[in-house]
Amino acid sequence: MSKHIDTLIEAVFKANLELPVRGLVTFTWGNVSAVDRKQGWIVIKPSGVPYEKLQVEDMVVTDMDGNIVHGTKRPSSDLATHIALYKGFPGCGSIVHTHARNSTAWAQSCTDLPPLGTTHADYFFGAVPCTRKMTDDEIQENYELETGNVIVETFRTRAIDPEAVPAALVAAHGPFSWGKTPEEALYHAVVLEEIAYMAMATMSIRPAISHMQQTLLDKHFLRKHGKNAYYGQ
Amino acid sequence: MSKHIDTLIEAVFKANLELPVRGLVTFTWGNVSAVDRKQGWIVIKPSGVPYEKLQVEDMVVTDMDGNIVHGTKRPSSDLATHIALYKGFPGCGSIVHTHARNSTAWAQSCTDLPPLGTTHADYFFGAVPCTRKMTDDEIQENYELETGNVIVETFRTRAIDPEAVPAALVAAHGPFSWGKTPEEALYHAVVLEEIAYMAMATMSIRPAISHMQQTLLDKHFLRKHGKNAYYGQ
Amino acid sequence: MSKHIDTLIEAVFKANLELPVRGLVTFTWGNVSAVDRKQGWIVIKPSGVPYEKLQVEDMVVTDMDGNIVHGTKRPSSDLATHIALYKGFPGCGSIVHTHARNSTAWAQSCTDLPPLGTTHADYFFGAVPCTRKMTDDEIQENYELETGNVIVETFRTRAIDPEAVPAALVAAHGPFSWGKTPEEALYHAVVLEEIAYMAMATMSIRPAISHMQQTLLDKHFLRKHGKNAYYGQ
Amino acid sequence: MSKHIDTLIEAVFKANLELPVRGLVTFTWGNVSAVDRKQGWIVIKPSGVPYEKLQVEDMVVTDMDGNIVHGTKRPSSDLATHIALYKGFPGCGSIVHTHARNSTAWAQSCTDLPPLGTTHADYFFGAVPCTRKMTDDEIQENYELETGNVIVETFRTRAIDPEAVPAALVAAHGPFSWGKTPEEALYHAVVLEEIAYMAMATMSIRPAISHMQQTLLDKHFLRKHGKNAYYGQ
Repeated sequence: MSKHIDTLIEAVFKANLELPVRGLVTFTWGNVSAVDRKQGWIVIKPSGVPYEKLQVEDMVVTDMDGNIVHGTKRPSSDLATHIALYKGFPGCGSIVHTHARNSTAWAQSCTDLPPLGTTHADYFFGAVPCTRKMTDDEIQENYELETGNVIVETFRTRAIDPEAVPAALVAAHGPFSWGKTPEEALYHAVVLEEIAYMAMATMSIRPAISHMQQTLLDKHFLRKHGKNAYYGQ
Repeated sequence: MSKHIDTLIEAVFKANLELPVRGLVTFTWGNVSAVDRKQGWIVIKPSGVPYEKLQVEDMVVTDMDGNIVHGTKRPSSDLATHIALYKGFPGCGSIVHTHARNSTAWAQSCTDLPPLGTTHADYFFGAVPCTRKMTDDEIQENYELETGNVIVETFRTRAIDPEAVPAALVAAHGPFSWGKTPEEALYHAVVLEEIAYMAMATMSIRPAISHMQQTLLDKHFLRKHGKNAYYGQ
Repeated sequence: MSKHIDTLIEAVFKANLELPVRGLVTFTWGNVSAVDRKQGWIVIKPSGVPYEKLQVEDMVVTDMDGNIVHGTKRPSSDLATHIALYKGFPGCGSIVHTHARNSTAWAQSCTDLPPLGTTHADYFFGAVPCTRKMTDDEIQENYELETGNVIVETFRTRAIDPEAVPAALVAAHGPFSWGKTPEEALYHAVVLEEIAYMAMATMSIRPAISHMQQTLLDKHFLRKHGKNAYYGQ
Repeated sequence: MSKHIDTLIEAVFKANLELPVRGLVTFTWGNVSAVDRKQGWIVIKPSGVPYEKLQVEDMVVTDMDGNIVHGTKRPSSDLATHIALYKGFPGCGSIVHTHARNSTAWAQSCTDLPPLGTTHADYFFGAVPCTRKMTDDEIQENYELETGNVIVETFRTRAIDPEAVPAALVAAHGPFSWGKTPEEALYHAVVLEEIAYMAMATMSIRPAISHMQQTLLDKHFLRKHGKNAYYGQ
């Protein structure tokens, strides 16, 4: 194993351990993976191992078709979803999936998470989209793969840039987020859960609230991202 | 005492201690029991002992009629409810009762907990049913026993399989969950509390939300349970 | 000082320390007192001392007119409210006042906390009443005393037994609870906060929910309180 | 550096560290500053440094135009907002900005936080105002400065005394609070988050609730503030 993949395994392992620390997972309900695009390898959490027992050597390495390259455990059953996202989003380096409470509530409501304030705008350049419901065929055959495909389809048909909106809600399921590194994908998962709570609370105070001004959304996203970024709190 | 019952006592004791750790109980508002069907014995938390003082030797063993077989404390006053469930549900090995906040809110609303997403579908194969209100007679005579009976009646009259939906809400009271072992019954209690919060939040975002697709419910439950199970996160 | 009053001081001190542990207070927003009816003395938290610095010797002892009998600190400014309650409710041995989040939300909504389930019925034999708004005169003159008086008036005019419903909500203010001992008054404060959350959640799920059955309320309260009590979880 | 500025640096550092302890910030989403009006210096958190790595020597000192006087880090990008507030509110000695969940939800709802109870009235002498939306020009040019200006404008045009209502909500953004010292500004940030939750909960229980009585608001604020203050809990 190259030194680069060892570093990636360590980063994926640490990000997985952060999931319960950040309050994003109950039991084993979540996973983090990352991709080494040069090598064509994916590092992912093993299937069904509780976080409190997870060891760095439990991490599983597969190729882009899901064949195990390294490791003695089975990869997370969500591997096929992760692979579909890596194939569909070339700029994506790491993926986090959780069933965090408030993000999942939005996914269950089959509703886009609307941009209502600058906390959202600092990281997501527009609504976090919710996928369409999957068809019976998609559910019954290659379900995990099709879960990834329906996310990619959502971004393509709605012309959303996955690097500007690094998360999606899968209808009646839960959130996926991503980033260049495991740290960034995890960061986005935490932000998503926070803005999911805030948006729900905002609508409870004022049900008819509409999206924030586009100018303000532009300002906040663009002062932190892209070539003219300058902001730090 | 046989070695088997000692193992069961230890498991029931540990599951009881997990209730406050998991945030499911305030004060003494909860209890875990388990049954040794060969012997015809039930192990249950003693009555009124705070969790922080609970010792393994405080556990009470009774026969299926509630007569004390082992132990110096009185059994939980909910024993009769547990016995009714063990008699009504032959596949049930352990029972957890709590007044956890969000599950109890659903019970108080006298409403089935609807399946709105895959977190629910992974463990409960359909709505978690809420019982009818108990009659005055049931309440005034053999109340704890009748509490168990009304749960069993709910599953029978609505043709729900208690192994596929391992929990119930007692109207204006609170949740009961079960499983093959104390670990599993407790696991289901934690899931129930989590999906109770999520369903409430989902309805707050979108009041008119309806049940998830049956195909998706089938897929998620059946990939984890039964002979074709394959899933691990 | 008699040994009895020392024991009471210790109990009041410990109950005050429990307020932040139980999540019932932010900063100094709460206080516990107790009465020694034989001696005619009240023990209460000193004014403005943060819980993390509170020492047992900071406790203040006053007579029933609020004159300091023992201690070097000023008593809590809420002392006059406590005195009015001790005078109005002869069976009351200790009082807890907090601004706990969910109980205070009910008080701010100027609404009785309705009995919606057995968690409520186990400790409160009916709705926890909310007082009428105080008059301008009551607010401008002897405000703290009149706050106690309006609670007593609420129980008298509505014929509620303060030993069967050991708490009240003061409109646009917050909760008071009581009991025979500081432990019991604190216990009721914790229960009140819990059922306040549950009732709000229940109404969020089902806005038109009505009170629980009277028979069930009777059963739960009476199996735990009074001469026929038998229950322990 | 004078001894006075060292003391202020230490106080600003400690108040910044309290933000995550009090649950007011996720990641680096918040900052505390203070002003030394004699010297014309501002002490503020450095930009983008995580709280767990923050050292007292990281604090940045600038003049009233934002030029760095002391320190090796960049000041928080929100510095211009803080400067506008210090210039507009001569009695203000310290400022706290966060994206705390419930305060931010009110800001996102573009709604004043109404005074619904005495917890609010003890610290805020009326509604905590929400600013108007900023114009496109204000957002696109000198955004951080204009954020401060729109707060000052809100207090001036609505004739609100910033010492009697020591906080504001910036529409679609989040809360700012202030006080004479970092301790006081932080205290107000904690109170604001608490009353933001309570007000949302109150409206969930009773949507048509109106402001508390003016007499009660006067009584609670004035018994704690100004020359006739006497209250301590």
